[in-house]
Formats: sequence, structure tokens, C-alpha cells
Amino acid sequence: MIDSSHPHKVRPPKSLSEASLLEAPALLMRKVRGLSSRAGLTWFACVPLALFILGVFNLSAHAAELPELTPAFLVNNLWLAIAAFLVIFMNAGFAMVEAGLCRQKNAVNILAKNLIVFALAVTAYWFIGYSLMYGDSIAGGWLHFKGLFFDPTVTPEMVTEGKLVPSVDFLFQAAFAGTAATIVSGLVAERIKFKEFVIFSLILVGIIYPIAGSWKWNANGWLNQLGFIDFAGSTLVHSVGAWAGVVGAMILGPRIGKYVDSKPQAIPGHSLALATLGCLILWLGWYGFNPGSVLAMNETVPYIAVTTTLGAAGGGIAGTLISQIHSGKPDLTMAINGILAGLVGVTAGCDGFPMWAAWVVGFIGGAIVVYAVSFMDSIGIDDPVGAFSVHGVGGIWGTLAVGLFNKDAGLLFGKGFNQLGLQFLGVFAYAIFTIITAWILWSILGALTGGIRVHEKEELVGLDISEHGMEAYPDFVAASN
Amino acid sequence: MIDSSHPHKVRPPKSLSEASLLEAPALLMRKVRGLSSRAGLTWFACVPLALFILGVFNLSAHAAELPELTPAFLVNNLWLAIAAFLVIFMNAGFAMVEAGLCRQKNAVNILAKNLIVFALAVTAYWFIGYSLMYGDSIAGGWLHFKGLFFDPTVTPEMVTEGKLVPSVDFLFQAAFAGTAATIVSGLVAERIKFKEFVIFSLILVGIIYPIAGSWKWNANGWLNQLGFIDFAGSTLVHSVGAWAGVVGAMILGPRIGKYVDSKPQAIPGHSLALATLGCLILWLGWYGFNPGSVLAMNETVPYIAVTTTLGAAGGGIAGTLISQIHSGKPDLTMAINGILAGLVGVTAGCDGFPMWAAWVVGFIGGAIVVYAVSFMDSIGIDDPVGAFSVHGVGGIWGTLAVGLFNKDAGLLFGKGFNQLGLQFLGVFAYAIFTIITAWILWSILGALTGGIRVHEKEELVGLDISEHGMEAYPDFVAASN
Amino acid sequence: MIDSSHPHKVRPPKSLSEASLLEAPALLMRKVRGLSSRAGLTWFACVPLALFILGVFNLSAHAAELPELTPAFLVNNLWLAIAAFLVIFMNAGFAMVEAGLCRQKNAVNILAKNLIVFALAVTAYWFIGYSLMYGDSIAGGWLHFKGLFFDPTVTPEMVTEGKLVPSVDFLFQAAFAGTAATIVSGLVAERIKFKEFVIFSLILVGIIYPIAGSWKWNANGWLNQLGFIDFAGSTLVHSVGAWAGVVGAMILGPRIGKYVDSKPQAIPGHSLALATLGCLILWLGWYGFNPGSVLAMNETVPYIAVTTTLGAAGGGIAGTLISQIHSGKPDLTMAINGILAGLVGVTAGCDGFPMWAAWVVGFIGGAIVVYAVSFMDSIGIDDPVGAFSVHGVGGIWGTLAVGLFNKDAGLLFGKGFNQLGLQFLGVFAYAIFTIITAWILWSILGALTGGIRVHEKEELVGLDISEHGMEAYPDFVAASN
Repeated sequence: MIDSSHPHKVRPPKSLSEASLLEAPALLMRKVRGLSSRAGLTWFACVPLALFILGVFNLSAHAAELPELTPAFLVNNLWLAIAAFLVIFMNAGFAMVEAGLCRQKNAVNILAKNLIVFALAVTAYWFIGYSLMYGDSIAGGWLHFKGLFFDPTVTPEMVTEGKLVPSVDFLFQAAFAGTAATIVSGLVAERIKFKEFVIFSLILVGIIYPIAGSWKWNANGWLNQLGFIDFAGSTLVHSVGAWAGVVGAMILGPRIGKYVDSKPQAIPGHSLALATLGCLILWLGWYGFNPGSVLAMNETVPYIAVTTTLGAAGGGIAGTLISQIHSGKPDLTMAINGILAGLVGVTAGCDGFPMWAAWVVGFIGGAIVVYAVSFMDSIGIDDPVGAFSVHGVGGIWGTLAVGLFNKDAGLLFGKGFNQLGLQFLGVFAYAIFTIITAWILWSILGALTGGIRVHEKEELVGLDISEHGMEAYPDFVAASN
Repeated sequence: MIDSSHPHKVRPPKSLSEASLLEAPALLMRKVRGLSSRAGLTWFACVPLALFILGVFNLSAHAAELPELTPAFLVNNLWLAIAAFLVIFMNAGFAMVEAGLCRQKNAVNILAKNLIVFALAVTAYWFIGYSLMYGDSIAGGWLHFKGLFFDPTVTPEMVTEGKLVPSVDFLFQAAFAGTAATIVSGLVAERIKFKEFVIFSLILVGIIYPIAGSWKWNANGWLNQLGFIDFAGSTLVHSVGAWAGVVGAMILGPRIGKYVDSKPQAIPGHSLALATLGCLILWLGWYGFNPGSVLAMNETVPYIAVTTTLGAAGGGIAGTLISQIHSGKPDLTMAINGILAGLVGVTAGCDGFPMWAAWVVGFIGGAIVVYAVSFMDSIGIDDPVGAFSVHGVGGIWGTLAVGLFNKDAGLLFGKGFNQLGLQFLGVFAYAIFTIITAWILWSILGALTGGIRVHEKEELVGLDISEHGMEAYPDFVAASN
Repeated sequence: MIDSSHPHKVRPPKSLSEASLLEAPALLMRKVRGLSSRAGLTWFACVPLALFILGVFNLSAHAAELPELTPAFLVNNLWLAIAAFLVIFMNAGFAMVEAGLCRQKNAVNILAKNLIVFALAVTAYWFIGYSLMYGDSIAGGWLHFKGLFFDPTVTPEMVTEGKLVPSVDFLFQAAFAGTAATIVSGLVAERIKFKEFVIFSLILVGIIYPIAGSWKWNANGWLNQLGFIDFAGSTLVHSVGAWAGVVGAMILGPRIGKYVDSKPQAIPGHSLALATLGCLILWLGWYGFNPGSVLAMNETVPYIAVTTTLGAAGGGIAGTLISQIHSGKPDLTMAINGILAGLVGVTAGCDGFPMWAAWVVGFIGGAIVVYAVSFMDSIGIDDPVGAFSVHGVGGIWGTLAVGLFNKDAGLLFGKGFNQLGLQFLGVFAYAIFTIITAWILWSILGALTGGIRVHEKEELVGLDISEHGMEAYPDFVAASN
């Protein structure tokens, strides 16, 4: 056999403390400003410089020698790393679904937003978001913080107790944060200014999402202390993203041509192949999202993979069937959105639903989405890809469904209205908080930059040309639209 | 370090018995009928209702306390979960290959079929298929059954012996079932009615595939008892799907325009980019399909990954080379189908082939596919994406190749004709059973619904408009075809 | 529970020695020749035949009984198998990025090259490359060899010491070899002859890449002995591919229409949706590439996943921002290439960078790429997809960055210029070797076949029609270009 004792099989650094970078927030502010002008470049360049200088003088921390790695430690960390990779891959799914369901003249814009938002999300969540979400309680379970960045040091205790290392926990949570931001881009698609969207996303991921998330997923969070259940984030991730986006959609108003004589018009997406691909990528990614939320490898991980699958199946069947009943023909976009709504629906309770309930919750989620899309249209909110119907309505439904179908707490298992009430409270709390903060943020951005919507002319020609100076498909003849 | 002791790290339910739902089959019948009329909705709604009612009163089962999870238990279940995710992701591969190799006017239809079929496959296989495939023998190894649904309870014995939990085994097998159904959609593409296809798939996955599959993969199956070898399903999955589809293709007849003066015409697919992407997604998924079929993590898993890779490589080289020799130019669709045929070819014997044999088997599979496509054309069977050539012919070849190249049983290793004869028997048994049952089923569906083929006018305008009322690419100008 | 003791859960063969196939190189030569003529088929058919005959008489080796599989053995091999799958999936990413950034009239050609090159890469690397890279030193750390093929036998020692089995190590390294070859195809796109490219790739992967790679990743390699650091291959994989390609691009000259009056013209790609998808697939694949290069599962794997993510994020932000500053608008192709350059940049030092440095290295990589693309244009080298800017410049930057930012050896951590000097040496050595060998090889190919570039007429009509006789998107009306 060939000798494969590769020399680079050495243990990388264990301790790279990077705390006390207190000047960093100010620099970040300048960076954000730097985005809007050429002059900003000078300021912007200071960020890496400052990080670099701070880092150089910050090498005192020293890692303890690790004991032999235990099987539980190895398997738990391996599983969560893979789960994080799967959730990160959901970015490709969101990009394809959103691009596919929009017009080709805005495809570059949607794709660019999806790419840059995840890059920014990771950066912002690394910089401060993770600390705001999983730090120490500083205001009775309403606010949390523990310095900037995080300390990736692996301690002997983590090894012996089979705990997750900080790096993998951060990566998994950062991927979730990115998901919340990506949902917004669908709701505000085809008419928002690029720069304003980018800044909104940065603050959403860095500040709003982690504060809201800490209420439940930080052990000290007030909603967690009360007993609210949201296992993998129907509300914390999906609804938060959807609320933040729907506020943007309302402020923006509908796209030109969406309403003719006050009647909503269908504006079909430009590639249902990409949208379908995106749906199936998201389905795959959900196996990181839900089973990964166990935050360890144990016997429940496969069970949650099954309930997740059944939820998706139920949702897809419902979307297809209900659209068939409604319009006489099975609508592919409703199959796609039905699957996604089924997945969002089971997310909150995937660990505690019986299998049949997972299918039913998914089915109902997939059915609701068909009606929700019509409803949104009817009240004048233009949601180009159906993101609120899927993630907002689906997320609310899934969270409430825990109060009905959870084996240990659900109304239908004779456990009374207690949990259901708590679930309503949680849904309500997240809705209020996100709507208010998003409204304030969108409004400030609009006030500072003369409105968050592109000019009519730019919208008509498409954001690809007007915002990016390029076309997604220059080799093909476009149908006029 | 930030405190990451997320509160939802609790053990989800271990016992959710859902057996004895004996009324369910009747309900399912109504559900199927419900698909074909608006009036069916009322009946359809009863399914979740009944499941829900039954579930509520079915909480007696109680899980035993589990011992500490053993390393083998953790690793085996983790690996199989990941393998199942990879196989599930093959749906995206099939959707892209099939859509890419069909015309754009039928893309929505192909994509919708791929989406809904997997949702239905999971549901049907969960409802009854898994039981029919892995249940107790009730007819001398020809029929098996063990109640509806399955019991996901994890027992202490599974933990101590490192066995797979029922959930992960179900999920892995359900993904395989979905694969068989998906193969059908390629063969009947561009001319079949949507509803009829959906019902066929449901019965294929719920009844036909599991009964056939139990003959070999149920330890009591008669072909298994005889010594037939099909490690990961060249015959059980790929050939079964291909036979079921080819019967449909024969009943349907060729597409309009496929034969002019009895000469077969090339009808090129609309996006070779999507087809190539699909091929590479399938290649990835095969690492779940073949190495996952070990049903545990051990030292053979990487070996099987290598033989799988060599099979794909051999197939791709053959497809490219032989098409170059035939037509003077390397044909991308043959490179794609060569890779897939190579993969199908090594599937039956990937555990027992020497490495060189894996490459050779793949190479021969990739070469055969070029001739098979021409042959199918010449005998008047219109297989739009070459699915029979890849999965049928490739599956037969791979199954027979076990009798030649298997290290412990192959003719070429001096082990005589015994195994080769058994392999012929298995190929023959699956062909007969699938052809007959598929023929009956397609015929019944045709008789009940006035034929399984769309009207000429609908076919000409494309199934996207006629069956779904939408276009896949409305923003682009279509070339007339 | 249903009985799931599937009968095929047996241990596959452990010993399949296939060494001493000394006739094989001669056969391979004929195979290569066989590609260029119909008559070659006869010779070509000898390859499988010879392999088969040799294999039949080569069954003496016998595996020792294995002890109980240890947790470390199971987890390490599982992780590396998954990492290998992820790296193999990068082929889909490269195919989509390269196809998306080229014109639609050359899409089939790009896709076909990506497919066949990986099939050939695996075959060549299996045949001889792996041995040249990880064999015994035969020339003082400059050349290595240990027979043809490799012996997949699993020894008891591997099990007890938790080592990788040969199969998984081979697969992981073969995937890396494929990556190097794929990078070439971007640089020579839209004007190279198919056959010539295929032969070049075969020799690159089988001979050039492994010899170069052995200098560092073989423990005895001279650069490894000196202390050169390239953890996951910024130079060994990415730069080598880029140098080999850029030599081809220079010999080929720019595409028709690239320069008008000596001024470089933008030739936009035909599908930025595919390019974006490819970028996100590559991002996913990089989680196999970098963390997998630990060649074991331990506490550093998640840390490397984090530095990889931060590098990508920094690169994406830089690409977007710098293109905005330059051209006034955020350029999606620069966001894509920025992410990729960030990933390439952190690859060499992902194990030894502090987190902030990973972000900064990625950011600088993403910034450089914008300038590098302009620079390449300005000096008359036509790199259609920016592959040299991403993999060549990014790879050089990443390798040098180790000398600056590596916690234990970097200049900025007060460790002096020693490592930086070594990094320069390594970059230089790989550049010289690859440029010279690639130049010789391209030149020989050009001399033998009358030039490696297609005729002007063929280039104008597109390689899809001229080289493959087919179109990628026949159903759509193409814009003239």
C-alpha cells in the first residue's frame, strides 16, 4: 500500500482569542457608509487593518492539552458540521427558487442579493450576532451579550462530555441567521434598491434576528423560560424573515403591472426548472436544518428526518391537489411552495410530532399556502415568490401546530390549552418585535436614501440593467414583458 | 466562550406506535379517486382526519430507557441518515436530467411529475410499501407484510448491537422506492396524462415495487434464499423502474414527430446544461445509493465508493468514445447516459467486483447504452430521455456482470456458471413480474380514463400549457418545434 | 418493528491486489491514440481485456482478519468519505460556473469537457497518478512511485490506529486531481479542440499534477522537507491547474472578437443563474476540500470550516464592493469570482489562520481578483471565465498569506521572514515546473495535430455545432453574437 501519512495531519491552533475588539462597531458603521460612496473606500480599508493590528497583539490565550477524543465528541461534532454544510447549501436553493420565480430581467439582481447576503450574514453574525443570541443575559432574558466575535478554544471538558466545539455551533447558527435574511429578498424582489437591501440585511442578521432568537434559543431567554416550543425555527427563523420582508413589501408597494384596475395579475417566473431545482436543494438542506437542531447525534436524528420528509410530502401533495381543485390544473409553483410550506410547517415540532401528525401538519401547510397566496394578492401586498405565504403563514401554522399535535403538550393529546396559548404568545411576540424593528429600519433607510424603491424607469427596464449593468441571459431573445 | 447549551437539546419521543390503522386502505382508495374530481375533496379530507383521530387514541406504547449510545450505533445511524439524504437528493438529479432532455414545452410537466412522485412515493411507501417489502413472509418468500406504517421505537438492543433504527432504515428504503418511480417518468415523458401517471406511480411504489423488492432484500425472499445477488439494486430498483416505464412507453406509442416515414428522428432536449447538472447530482447521490447499501459503516464503504466511481468513469469514457466512433463527434447526451449506465451497471456488484472489473463493467455499460438507444429507436419504442437504455439495459447488464466478475462467485474467477444462472433467473423474474403488473395497471388506467395519452392537440402545444396552464420559460422566445 | 436484517450486509472483499500490470502503460498510449481515429477502437478494446485477463490470474493476496472496528477508525473514514463526495460534487460547480460564464454556442463543449475530464482524471489517477504522488521516493524527494493502481487491502493496524483505508484516501486525492484538471478547461474555453484538450487533461492528471503534488504532500517531498506550507492546495491544486491553463490560453491566443483595435471587449456569459449556482455548489464542496484535508476527524475540522466560510464571505464582499467602486455598479460575476478567490485564498492556510486573518485573506483575494481580471485583459491573455485570476492569482496570494498570517510561522506574528521565503520558493517552483511541462505538452499536441485551436469558422459558429454537432438550447431563439 502507498504510504499516505500526509505530513499536514497536524493539529491546528486551538486558541485564538479575539475578544475586546471594542473599536470594531464604529468601524463597521463606517464600512456600511463606505458602501454608498467611493470616498468610503478609505474608511472601509480600515476594517481589515484594525482587525489585523488587534489580532497581532492578541496571542496570550493558551489552550489546554486535550485528552483523547471521545466517540461522542467525534460523532456529535461531525454530524453538526455536516448539518451546517447542508444548511449553508440552502443558499443555493433559495437563490434558485427566488430567481426562478422572478422575471429574467431581474435575475442578476436576485442572484447577487442571495450571494452577498450570505457573505454579509456570516460576517455580521460572527462579528456580533452570535454573541447577542447566545451570550449572557443582560436584561432579564430579553437581551444577551458576551463580547465581539467568539472564542473557538476547545476545552478538555468539551471532549470528555462530547459537547459541540464553539466553531461548529457558530457555523450552524450562522447558517440559520443567513436563512432568515434570505427570506426577505424574495418579498422585496424586483423593485428594491440593491444597496438599501444589503444594509437592511446586515442589521437584520447582526442585531434584530439574534436579539429575537435569544428569547427562545438562549437558555435564559424569557420565552424559553416560559416554555414556548420552536424546535428548529418555524417562528424564530422563518417567520422572522417573513415579517421583516413583508414590512418591506408593504412599504415598497406592488410591482408595476401587478394590479390592473385593482385586480391582481399573475407575473410568472422566468424559469420553473431553476425553481424546482431550488425546491429540491432546500429539501436536502432541511435535513441539516431540522435533524441538525438536535445539536448532537442520537437516536432522534433519524426520527426527525422522517417527520421532516413526511411534512414535505404532505405539503407537496396538498399544494398540487388544492391548486388542481382551485384552478382545474395542478400548478407547479404550488407544488414547490407546498413542499416548502410543509417543511416550514413541521420545523417547529418535528421532534415531538407523531409521524402521522407530521404528514398532516405538512399537508395543511401546503394547503394553506395556496389560499395565502391568493389572500396576499387580494389585500394588495405583492410577494413575488410567495415567501410570506410559505415562511410567514407556514411558520405561524407550524408553531401553533405544536400546541395541537405535540405528543407531550398538545391539545389533541389531552394536554389542554396551556401549550397552545404559549405558542400563540410566541408567534405574537416575534411578529410584534420584528414588524416594529423592521418598519423602523426600512423607514430610516428610506428617509436617508430617498426611498428604498428604484425609479419606475429602472423597474421597467429591469434591475439587472439598471442596478448591475448586465444581463443574466444575453445570448437569448427575451419575450417582451 | 458563549454558552451554547441550547434548551431544545432534549430527547424526542421514542415510541409512537401507529399500527392497526386498518381502515386506512379504504381511505386511500378514496383519496386516489379524490384526485380525479372536485367532489373527491370531501373524501380526501377524511384521510388526515382519520389519521388524526386514530393517532389520538393510540398512545399506549412506551419506550424502554435506552442505555448509553454506543459508537457503532451512532456511526452506523449517522452514515445511513447521510446516505438517505444523498439518495433523496437524486430526485433533483432525475428532475434535471429528464427535464433537460425533453423539450421546453413539456418542462413544467416533467418537473411537476418528479416533484409530486417523490412526495407520493414517500407517503405510499410509509403507508404500506415498507411493510410489504420488509415484513414477515406470508407466502413462502413471495409476499410479505407486517401492518401498516412502521413502529419507529428504538430498543435498547439496537443501541447495544449498533443496529440501524427503524426510522433511518425506512428513510433509506423509501428513497430507493422513489428512485424506481422516477425512472418511469422519463420513459413516458411528453405525452402522458398527468393524473394517470400519478396514480400509476402511487401503486408502483406502494405495491408493485415493494412486493418485487421483498423477493431479494427481505431475508426471507425466495430469490434471496436461492442466492441471487443484487447488492444495491441494478435490477430491484433500476430495471423495475425501467420495465414499468417501457410498458407505458409501448402502450403510449411514440411522440408525434418521432417517426417520419418510419425513420426515427432526433428530438433534442431543451437544456443540456440542466441535463449535465442532473448527471453530476446523480453521481453524487450514488455515493448514498451504493456505499449506503452496506447498511452500516465499515471498511467496505470506501471501497464501494471507489468501485462506484470507477464504474461512472468507465461509463462516461465509453459513452463519449463510442458516440465519437459512431457519429464522428462526441455526443454530450451519450457522455451523460454513459456515466449513468456505468453507475447503474456497477450497482449490483459494487461490493464484490475487483476495481478493474468495476471500471470494465462501467465501460461496457456506457458502450451498450449508445447501441441500446439506437436499438430502441429502431424497434419503434420512443424513450425520450434514454431511460430504458440506461436503467433497463444497464441494470440487466450489471446484474449479469455479477455472475461474471464477482470475486467469490463469478465465472471469470473460475466459480462456474452457477451464479450467472441465478443472475439470469433474477433478471427474468423481475422482468416478467414488472411487465405483467405494469401492463395490467396501465391498461386499467387507460380503460378507466379514456386512454393514458393526451390528445394530439395538447401534445403539439405542449403539456405545460395543456396540463398545467403555464410555461416554464415565459420570458424567452421559443424556437418553433 | 419490521425485520430489516437485509441479507446483503456482508463484508465485501478486502484484498484485490492489482499491481504488476506492467503492460498497461503501453496499452494506455494506444488508448490515447485510439481516441483520434476509428481504427483506434480495436486497440482501445484491449484495455479492458488486458485488465480483465490480468485480474483473473491475480487473486493470491489474502486479507488478514480484522479486529473490531474502533470508533476513531469508523469516524475518520466516514468523514473522509463524505469529504471526498463533497469534493467530487465540485465538478458540478465547475461545470456550472464555466458554462454559465461562456456563450451559449459553446455550452455543450464546456459541459462535455467537464464531464469527460473527471472520468479521465479518476481513471488516470487510479492507473498511475496516485502512485506517483504518494509512492516511495525514487529521486531524493523529486520523484515517487509505487507500482500501478493501488492495493485497497485494509490491515488490522489501520483499524486499531484509526487510520484511513487506502480506498478513501485514494478517492479524496483523486477528487483533488480532478479539480486541477477542471480549472484548465475554463482558461482554454470557447476555442480549443476537444480531443487535444482531453489528451492534455489525461497527462496533466496522470503525470504532471502528481509529480508536482508529491513534492509537498508526499512526506518525503523536497518542499515538504524544507517546511513549505500548503494545507489544502492553494498552490498544489489551484495554481497548478491555473498555470497549466494559462499556458494553453497564451498559445491559443484570444477568442475572435475579444480585442477590437487592441482594446479588450467584454464577452458576457450566457447564464448567470448557472454561474451563481455553480459558485454555491463550489462553496459547499470546499467544506470537503479544506476541512477534509485534515485527513481525520478531530477538533480542528470545524475550525477549518469556519475559516473557510469567513474567507468566502470576505471574498464575496470584496468582489462586490470593489467592482462597485470600479465600475459604479456591483458586478455579479465579480461577487462570484470574489467568493471563489476568497476560498482559494484561505485554502493554503485555513488550519493556521486566526479567524480574522481568514476573513482578511479572503477579502484581499476577492479584491485582487477584480484587478487581476482587468490585468489579464490588458496584457492580451483571454481567460473567458477568469480562472487564472481566481485560481492562479488567488492561489499565489493564499500561499504567500501563510507566510504573513500563520499563527505559528507568519511574519505578522513576529516569526520573521523564514516562512514567507519558503512560501515564495514553493510558489515559484510550482510555477516553473507547471509552465514548462504544460508548454511542452501543449506544443507537442499542437505539432501532432495541426494546432490546438479550432478553425475560425468553427469558432464563429460555436464549438457545440462544430465539435459536437448539437446545441445546448435548441428550443430557444439565440441572440446573434
